[in-house]
Amino acid sequence: MPIGVGRRQASVATATDPYVGLTRRHGRRRRRGFSNLARVALISFARGVPTADAIAIDAIRAAAGRALADDEAAARVLSYGPGGGWPALRAALAARHDVAVERILVVNGSLQGVAFVAEHFARTGRARVALEAPTYDRSLLNFRDRAFAIHSVLLADDGLDVDALERAVDAGAALLYTIPTFQNPAGCTLSAAKRERVAALARERDLWIFEDDPYSLLRYRGEDVPTIHSLAPDRTIWSTSFTKTVAPGLRVGYLVLPEALVAELTRIAVNTYISPSFLPEAIVTDLLASGSFEAGVALARGLLAERLAAMCAALDEHLPDARYVRPDGGYFLWLDLPDGVTATAVMAAATTHDVALVPGTDFFVDGGDGSVRLAFSGVVAGEIAEGVRRLAAAVADSRV
Amino acid sequence: MPIGVGRRQASVATATDPYVGLTRRHGRRRRRGFSNLARVALISFARGVPTADAIAIDAIRAAAGRALADDEAAARVLSYGPGGGWPALRAALAARHDVAVERILVVNGSLQGVAFVAEHFARTGRARVALEAPTYDRSLLNFRDRAFAIHSVLLADDGLDVDALERAVDAGAALLYTIPTFQNPAGCTLSAAKRERVAALARERDLWIFEDDPYSLLRYRGEDVPTIHSLAPDRTIWSTSFTKTVAPGLRVGYLVLPEALVAELTRIAVNTYISPSFLPEAIVTDLLASGSFEAGVALARGLLAERLAAMCAALDEHLPDARYVRPDGGYFLWLDLPDGVTATAVMAAATTHDVALVPGTDFFVDGGDGSVRLAFSGVVAGEIAEGVRRLAAAVADSRV
Repeated sequence: MPIGVGRRQASVATATDPYVGLTRRHGRRRRRGFSNLARVALISFARGVPTADAIAIDAIRAAAGRALADDEAAARVLSYGPGGGWPALRAALAARHDVAVERILVVNGSLQGVAFVAEHFARTGRARVALEAPTYDRSLLNFRDRAFAIHSVLLADDGLDVDALERAVDAGAALLYTIPTFQNPAGCTLSAAKRERVAALARERDLWIFEDDPYSLLRYRGEDVPTIHSLAPDRTIWSTSFTKTVAPGLRVGYLVLPEALVAELTRIAVNTYISPSFLPEAIVTDLLASGSFEAGVALARGLLAERLAAMCAALDEHLPDARYVRPDGGYFLWLDLPDGVTATAVMAAATTHDVALVPGTDFFVDGGDGSVRLAFSGVVAGEIAEGVRRLAAAVADSRV
Repeated sequence: MPIGVGRRQASVATATDPYVGLTRRHGRRRRRGFSNLARVALISFARGVPTADAIAIDAIRAAAGRALADDEAAARVLSYGPGGGWPALRAALAARHDVAVERILVVNGSLQGVAFVAEHFARTGRARVALEAPTYDRSLLNFRDRAFAIHSVLLADDGLDVDALERAVDAGAALLYTIPTFQNPAGCTLSAAKRERVAALARERDLWIFEDDPYSLLRYRGEDVPTIHSLAPDRTIWSTSFTKTVAPGLRVGYLVLPEALVAELTRIAVNTYISPSFLPEAIVTDLLASGSFEAGVALARGLLAERLAAMCAALDEHLPDARYVRPDGGYFLWLDLPDGVTATAVMAAATTHDVALVPGTDFFVDGGDGSVRLAFSGVVAGEIAEGVRRLAAAVADSRV
């Protein structure tokens, strides 16, 4: 059965301020009796964030100091510059990807890149996108808010249904937005064979691909799979972020653009903010040059692998009749609830058990009420078993 | 006569990358004979940027150090947070403006705020804007790229033509984008009496105002004029930037929103970048709290007043038949060229005289070829007379 569908349908819920909304909606606590005072406070599997101990604060602090140490260098960091990003960072990334510097567009967080691409397709009369179902809720909103026609493509354990994608292209989809590796929210990874088929569709059917790839350096088992970008470089916008490998608050992500989109996407960036914020980009440049970046990735990978193992063990023990496919990396585990249990009911019960999570409905245009997304990134391993116990109690309360 | 019109008409020119475009287009040097080797290199009146000596680098460096000094504070700076901006900065700005914190939307540079507002009006079917003619070229592009109907409102020495604005409202304009104080590019300031009329139109005719106000702290003579926002707070989005008072490269600006627009504009911000970049915002917070901000403004104001005086003196000496109105503050002086001289011709001649400027046409939907914009912000006072001498030579070459 496809992931997370075939249950009761529901529309995507949106809050006025999704940041506040998520916190409040999934994190609200109720006043209860004295017997609960000894409990650990809310355990949140809701947000895809790293814990503070996964951020190399000392290295970042030192890099910031170096970026501003010299007056002449500081004056450049503090001035306007190219809309495509801090020159030294673009050069370092261009070398890593073996592309021309112009093809690197560094943005204030990778979601900004999704917004630019959505805007470009909307302005050029091609507001028709194929989206994985489920998919990352904030990307979904970027397309929905721009009135895109949305072609939903269901996911299986080995990634998106390529036959369904082909039907979406037949129906006019101009762009596929996909998170092929350790998908958010489903955790699954598109197989190598399917990547070949997707790349062939892109080349042969005038389909553009947005390959959102923020998690692939956080692999806990198995071997790397080729990116779609490597298979269809002229048709694929490849995107990643330093949010999961350095720190979210810096807001540094980047796109590797196909040559044909460089001029227009750079123009949109310049007309949106002239140039991005350079100090965070100079910090990332320093971390890449010093090797601190790789050390930070290794730190995060170790912590996250431990958290995933703790979560899987706890789910096997406390929720044996819920179904999940263990992800090979990333931040998220997608849990299909036991038969007859809805995410709506679990969300309501979760607040009384001091555990937070996101209902599957947030990630679908329609549907998803049979599933929930669990982020294992933001809870230290020692609290994960207790969080899953609380989740199991919430599920028990929700059984019909 | 209105500013910069009534001459030969021309369309707005756009470059693929406006940053690169401006630099290249207005800054290109030609290889010439040995006799020129001793000359100072290009003198640029083209870009509205501060020189490095107007940026308080030491204070910014110290503020960055403090923002990351403590592990716990650094972890917050390096994490996700509210889409509306760094909480301490929003609180400080809310106190300064005496508004609720929710009404402060801190953005990655104030142009990003223009983009958000343009996007909001476009999505809600109100893509009809009244723009000053001339106006800031990058704001103009934000509306034009979103297919707005543009109602041009001419400028006089005391700001926009309010009768023309009223006609624009009659014709369906839903939004006025204005830079009422030390306007870019014209340098003029909307009079107090006209501000009252604009505010009344906003209240009575369902007109929204975007009051772009990045320069008002850089006043060199005269008294402050009330903001339109203070006269029609429920109908005005007031915007400013720390680009001209701290440093451009930090990319920190903010909007004071009318209550009715808080929810939707915050939602757009969150769905574009989750939260803005916090380290630059924490730096600005520190500068505001320590008094370094005011010191930096005083530094910039002193340097800029001197540059403006040097430019006016040089223009009076070398180009007595060109017309300008001396601005009371800001970065820009708008020069109406002598009769029969076009900006097109001056731009061509300027490259051979090693002086850079922007043709008036860049700031109009149509028109502007009788004028040029001179930024006195980015040239040290000692070079301004030489730059104007070169400009006068370019004008002489362009006389018919």
